[in-house]
Order: sequence, then structure tokens, then C-alpha cells
Amino acid sequence: MTVLPNTSTTASELEGMLAAAETAATDWAQRPAAGRADALVAVAEALDAAADQLVPVAQEETNLPPARLNGELKRTTFQLRLFAEMLLDGGYLDARIDHGDPAWPMGARPDIRRVLEPLGPVVVFAASNFPFAFSVMGGDTCSALAAGCSVVVKVHSGHPRLSAAVGRIAGEALRGAGAPDGLLALVYGTQAGRDALLDPRIKAGAFTGSISGGRALFDLANSRPEPIPFYGELGSVNPVFVTEAAAAARGSEIVSEFVGSYTLGAGQFCTKPGILLVPEASSMVQELSATDRPAPAKLLNERIQSGYTSSLEGLLKHDAVDSLGGTEDILAFPPAPALNITTASALLADPEGLITECFGPSALVATYQSEEELLAVARVLDGQLTATIQGEDTDAVAPELVRVLAGKAGRVLWNQWPTGVSVTYAQQHGGPYPATTAPTSTSVGTASISRFLRPVAYQGLPAHLLPGALRDENPLGVPQRVNGALSI
Amino acid sequence: MTVLPNTSTTASELEGMLAAAETAATDWAQRPAAGRADALVAVAEALDAAADQLVPVAQEETNLPPARLNGELKRTTFQLRLFAEMLLDGGYLDARIDHGDPAWPMGARPDIRRVLEPLGPVVVFAASNFPFAFSVMGGDTCSALAAGCSVVVKVHSGHPRLSAAVGRIAGEALRGAGAPDGLLALVYGTQAGRDALLDPRIKAGAFTGSISGGRALFDLANSRPEPIPFYGELGSVNPVFVTEAAAAARGSEIVSEFVGSYTLGAGQFCTKPGILLVPEASSMVQELSATDRPAPAKLLNERIQSGYTSSLEGLLKHDAVDSLGGTEDILAFPPAPALNITTASALLADPEGLITECFGPSALVATYQSEEELLAVARVLDGQLTATIQGEDTDAVAPELVRVLAGKAGRVLWNQWPTGVSVTYAQQHGGPYPATTAPTSTSVGTASISRFLRPVAYQGLPAHLLPGALRDENPLGVPQRVNGALSI
Repeated sequence: MTVLPNTSTTASELEGMLAAAETAATDWAQRPAAGRADALVAVAEALDAAADQLVPVAQEETNLPPARLNGELKRTTFQLRLFAEMLLDGGYLDARIDHGDPAWPMGARPDIRRVLEPLGPVVVFAASNFPFAFSVMGGDTCSALAAGCSVVVKVHSGHPRLSAAVGRIAGEALRGAGAPDGLLALVYGTQAGRDALLDPRIKAGAFTGSISGGRALFDLANSRPEPIPFYGELGSVNPVFVTEAAAAARGSEIVSEFVGSYTLGAGQFCTKPGILLVPEASSMVQELSATDRPAPAKLLNERIQSGYTSSLEGLLKHDAVDSLGGTEDILAFPPAPALNITTASALLADPEGLITECFGPSALVATYQSEEELLAVARVLDGQLTATIQGEDTDAVAPELVRVLAGKAGRVLWNQWPTGVSVTYAQQHGGPYPATTAPTSTSVGTASISRFLRPVAYQGLPAHLLPGALRDENPLGVPQRVNGALSI
Repeated sequence: MTVLPNTSTTASELEGMLAAAETAATDWAQRPAAGRADALVAVAEALDAAADQLVPVAQEETNLPPARLNGELKRTTFQLRLFAEMLLDGGYLDARIDHGDPAWPMGARPDIRRVLEPLGPVVVFAASNFPFAFSVMGGDTCSALAAGCSVVVKVHSGHPRLSAAVGRIAGEALRGAGAPDGLLALVYGTQAGRDALLDPRIKAGAFTGSISGGRALFDLANSRPEPIPFYGELGSVNPVFVTEAAAAARGSEIVSEFVGSYTLGAGQFCTKPGILLVPEASSMVQELSATDRPAPAKLLNERIQSGYTSSLEGLLKHDAVDSLGGTEDILAFPPAPALNITTASALLADPEGLITECFGPSALVATYQSEEELLAVARVLDGQLTATIQGEDTDAVAPELVRVLAGKAGRVLWNQWPTGVSVTYAQQHGGPYPATTAPTSTSVGTASISRFLRPVAYQGLPAHLLPGALRDENPLGVPQRVNGALSI
């Protein structure tokens, strides 16, 4: 693996990396899944072993506290191990075998067998807010490597030294596990990232970050002579709907948990609950106003801080918005957590102006007058990563609210909080635009591997030319759908 | 269902259809899968019963012979029945259940459950060359309806009366099966199709046709404030690689089968084998030149005929191309099947000029000097729907040729021909651009339903609020992946 200092990657350096990535992808795609799994585990072990060296660098570069960073690193290495397990299971291959059938009703059916295969070299744009879990060896890289792709990471400018260290350690571990040279490369600088995305050898892109940045790269990927899949995880407001019954039964508890969730990590989560809808008739606004908020915390970097301040100032200028508490502290450096207030009818009157992400420690409380109004707000939402209901089992509004929110969000929560995205088999971190640019995919959880795979069917091939997953004797022991029936 | 005459749909008519499609999608998505399956079967039965009425109209509008049209209708109604079966199996839902797990290694895991749900209203752009199978009630409409989406079909101008008749019969059958009004609508005219694709209520597009037309619509779908998935099946050359051993063992047989395949349906198949690579040292060119070709046949319509003639004339002007036989007949109306000849080294020198689709009854034969050259041609290919090898089991070149072609094509065939795409569980009709705009998907076969579904995860929901497929007691009897392990 090539690790460069934090200067922009030159065109000729990039050319070398892309050429190596193409060769490496061909090699890596042909490795048995067990070999790829071993390499992922080797990277996990190497990163765990280097925690004491990596976490202080991460802390210096991101202002995030050590406990959080250690937890994030643990998540990152767990993810590598979970994907290694999935490779051995083989269900992700969606192997299908149709034997020839002369009696097939539309006419004799040939022998056709279909399996998912890697797309080729992929470019991953690292995020700023999770310097381990959504960066050099984060979910995008992990799922692309697991799929059998090589990866060129565009390093985030917010943590270049950590990125170089993670890249060096991961690269050594991969090499030690026998992975091909050039399987993982790091590039620095916006131009190099764009150039990589436009290179014909690159077959997909993945991104986590802002709507404007992600949309620009999505448009770039689609502008290519050969457009490629671009998996961007962009922005989300993650609204929370508190029903009348829940407010009455657990108002104080909800207030306290909400403040904990929207201020977690200084509000720098894609899943931060940015809007809280509460009944006007309840005492929740009063309680929100009276609840202590955490102390001011430094944001990730100056660019995040200035972006946050300016969007918060914009919101405060809105006629329908008031501050719950003064505005001095919340616009300071570092900023005190902010809470603002409006009404559901104002949200409905100006959804574009008010239902909008403000990346940092702030949230907007909106009071509603009836549960019909609550449903109306749900219906005007854009695509979301998450939508949360705080409700009671007997709530009459719940079924319709769940249905509407499932049409808007990738994940619907009940009496829990959206921050903290567990890496599991059933996790879904995605959603309609602008939550992502690819609503049919997820960027967290084992299903995220599908982003980097494409189906290939083999018709009439002799057994010795078929991929192992498609052979009748099933040497890899993967789940196969044979003549339409799933067998495991 | 609204069926309009063959005049362009007006903006206000379109508005009515889109409003109805949105309401219908909400209703249809909530129907039990068994109800959707019954409706698909009802459409199949109604179309089968109307064959004698529909086929003559199709024949008048497309110049295709009755036997072919009857077979195509049978394929179309079989497809509807196969998708109905798949709905009852439920494997397409990819249901996943993760129970809460306090010992989950990265930290306590909440209860998360994930299932695929319909995207919403979809616009389908019908193709000209399969007036039943890739038109109003073709694969795109069938898979979208099965997924739980409503469909607005942009009728192909080549067969408007057939489209109206199919739309009317399908609409009545759907209504008879209790489907909501507005579930299927037909629009006429390029502008109405574009306007539908740009409408915010539409959540995906599907298309089968030319590279230029498909790319324009793909760009349009991506230009929306909310970009949406666009599944375009565009163009493919479908090259055939004859190894030296196969040429020696079965040269005459291959020649005769090849002529049958490239002239099938007057060459108007997306999977027509457009390039045949044969050993220079063999007698295959001589045999190709001597083999009788079918009689001239009218093409689908005048637009197809003039496009065909002009791209064939362009090819004949290429310095490296000669005609195998005279050029008078092949440029006539109707055109005699054309065969042209070049060399593999010419393909390598000018892939863009020579490896290009010519939609109609023509093919290009290219002679190669070594199997290394054969591999070199495989390596310069753009994305393809299919790639075919005519080989012998002992061919040393076969493993590498299969591997390279699997990286380029959605379907790799061995000693068979690509025309005729069976509707099965393992079928893959797709491929990297320009074969399609979405290399991770298929437009034929049961897996095509995935194009119109998006994952939704439910975290912590009480059982009564969960979709049936995600309940522990599995009332629908669908395959579930529970805590990572697949159970059926």
C-alpha cells in the first residue's frame, strides 16, 4: 500500500495507484472467500493492537474524546470480523441454479446459473465525523474489500495523519495476509479524488458527507462516458414524533433522553435527531427549556464549526423560530448545545426552510396541535436515514405513522434513539434522497456488501468452468436457490 | 385504467394519472402478496384469452410474424404467473431479524428487523422490438407491479393500437381482481414520458431501447432535485468467441447456428450476436460466405429500417471492413441479411468504430491469428448483455476467457446462442454500461423485482406494528435470516 504525506496526490502518483488497483482487483476477485476473510481479520487484529498509538492521533485531529474513539475503533474492527464471517456463510452471493428444463412452460429452459461478482476497483470518500468507522478502514472500504474489490480511499482532510497511520497498518496487515499489492491505496486532495472517480478503471464510488459535496460527486459519477454506481450517504434530519400518549406517560424521560441523543458527539452524527415534535398541550416544552444540556464541546474542526454557526444563525433569523434559551453561548467557540422552537404548522408552511439538517449540537422542537398535524408533517418529509416514534402501544395514530415514515426513512425506531448505528445483519443505513443517492442500498450492516457486487449468469458451462458457488456439488457450502427453491 | 387514443397525453391528463398512481401505490403496497399475485394471474389469463384479438394488431404494427408474436405473448403471460409464484415464496423480501443482544461484541444490539418495500410509482418506457414482452405488460411492468408499485407506461410509438388494447385488457383484469384504480396508466408522446420521469411522485424509471435514448432519460432522472434509480437496458454487441479447437471440431455447425441466431427476428434482438471471432486459419470464413441466409424481412418500422441502413453504410465505409457478398440487397427495403468481415487486429486498433451495435440483420466476422489475440479482444470490450464462447472442454484458453468475459457481460454462454432470453430464477439480463445504466440489476428473471424495492429497518417495534414478514411467528412463511442464520 502506498501511503503519502498530507500533500495532494499528483496525477502520476494517482496513475500508479489506479494501475495497481486494477491489477489487484483482478487478483483479489479470484481469491477464495476464506482468504479474503483471513485478510479482513488480520487488519482488525492489527488495528486493535495499535489502538494506543492511533487513538491519541485521532483525538488531536478531531477533538473527539478517547472513550468515544476507542469505542469507534472497536466498532470498526468488529465490522471487519463480522464481514469475514459473512464471507464464509456465502448467502451474500445469492447463488441461483436453474437446471435445463425441456418442460419449462415458455419453452425449453437452458441450464443457467447466477452469482454475484465484484464490480472492480472502487473509490471511497472518507467522512470527517467518524475518523475510524467511516474513514480509511470504515464500512465502505470493509464492504468493498469483502466483496472482492480493490479500494482507493480519498482521505478526509480533517484527519490526514490518522488516515496515513491506519492506511499503513492496514496495508501491512493485508500484505502479511498475502493480499496483492495495490489492493488499498490512499489519495489526498479534492482534485485527486475527483480524478479517481472519473477514471475508467474505477467501477463504483462511495461517500459519506454533506448533501452539496455528495451531490457534486454523484453528478460527476453520472457524467462519465461509462456512468458508475455512486453510493452517497448525504444528509438527514432524523425527526422524532412524540405521540400525545407518550408525552403524557413519559414526557420527562423522553426530554432527558432526547437531549442526550442530539448532543451525543457534539451533534456530529448523521443520525442526530434534529427535529422533535411534541404536543403543544403537554409540558414537554417547559421541561426541554429547563433541562440541563451538556457543556460546550469543540467541534471536529474549524470548517465544521463555521458551517454549523452559519446554518444556526440562518435558522434563528427565520420568523417562525425562537431560541429556547439565549443565543450567545450557542454561537460561541466551542458552542453550547442549542435548542430552538417552532410549530408544526410552521414546518408545514415552510418545510424546505425548517426541515433541514444543521450539523452540530442543535435541534428544533416543533409543537403540534393534533395527531393529524403530526401525520401531516410526516407526509411532507424528504428522504431520511431514520425516523423515530416515541409512542405507546395503544396509540391509534401509530400504524399510519409507521407506514408513512417507512416510506420516507431507511430505519424506523420505536421508543429508542437513532444515534448509534449497530453493525448487524438487519441494519439499514440508507433512505430516499437526500438521505442517500441510492435508496435501494445500505452503507452499514452486512447487506452493504451488495453495493459492490454485480450479477453474472453462466449458461451451459461445463462444471470445471463454473464458479464454485454455482456447482451442483456445492463445494463452498453456500446457500443455493435451485430451480426456484432455496436450500441451505 | 385510462386508455387514451394515440395522441400525445396532455399535461392535465398526465397530472390526473400521476395523482391516481400515487394513491394507487399507497393502496397496492399494503395489499397482501397473495392478493397482488392473484391480480397478476388475472392479467395473464385475460391476455391469453385475447391472443386472437391482439396478435393480428401486433402483426400489423410491427411486421413480426404470428408464430413469433404468439410465442412472445406466451412468454409475457408466463412471466406474470412466475412472478405471482415468487410473491408467495417471499424470498425476494430478504427478511432479516436481529433480536436484541446485550453481548453483541461492539456493544448491546437493539432488536432490528429489515425487509424490502416498494419504491412507489414507477414510469416504464416500452420498447419497440418486443411489443408484448418488453412493452405495456412486459418485464418492467410485471416486476414493478409484483413489487407493489404502481406503473405509468410510456407507450412506444411503434405499436400504439396494440398498447392501448393490452392496456385496456390488463386494466380490466386488474380492476376485476380488486386492484386500485390508477394502478396502471398509459401515456403517449415523448414529452409526456419526460414529464412523468421528472415528476416528484415518480420514484424509479425503467427503459429498454437505444443507447442515445436511454442515456438521455438516465441523465434526466439524475438531474431531478431528487434523483431516482433509472434502469435502462441500452445496447450490446454480444460477441461470440470461437476457439481454434471448436472451429476445427464443429466449424460448419457453428456457422449454420450463428446465421440462424443473428438473423432471428430480422436481427432485432438486444442479444443478437453482432460479432463472431473465428480463427483465420480455419475454413469458417469460406463457409460463412457460402451459407444461405434467410430471405429479406421487413423491419419493425421505417425508423428502425433507416437507422439500420445508415449504420450499416457507415460500417461499410470503414477501411478495415469488407462485405461477405454484395451490398445491394443488404441495403434494400426490406434488407437481405448482411455479413461483413474484418480482422481481430482491426477491432483492437479501432474498438469504438468497429465493436458497435448495428440493430438489424447484420453481423461482423473478425478473424484472429492466435488465442492471445482472442483474449485481447475480450479485454477491450465495453459492457455487454451477453458474451458467448464456442469452445471445447479441453480448451486451454477457456478459463481465462470465461473470467474476462464475466467481467464484461451479464451473461456468459458456452456452446449456445444468446438470442432467446428465458424467464427463470437465475436469468441475468444486464451488464456494465452501455449494456445497462445499472450493472447491479437485471431486467429479466425473478431477480428483476429487486429494482423496485428498497430496504426498511424497524428498530424496537412492538409486534403488532411490524410487517408480517418480520414477525417472530412468521405468519407469511417467508424465508427469514434470524440473527445471521438463514431459515426456510
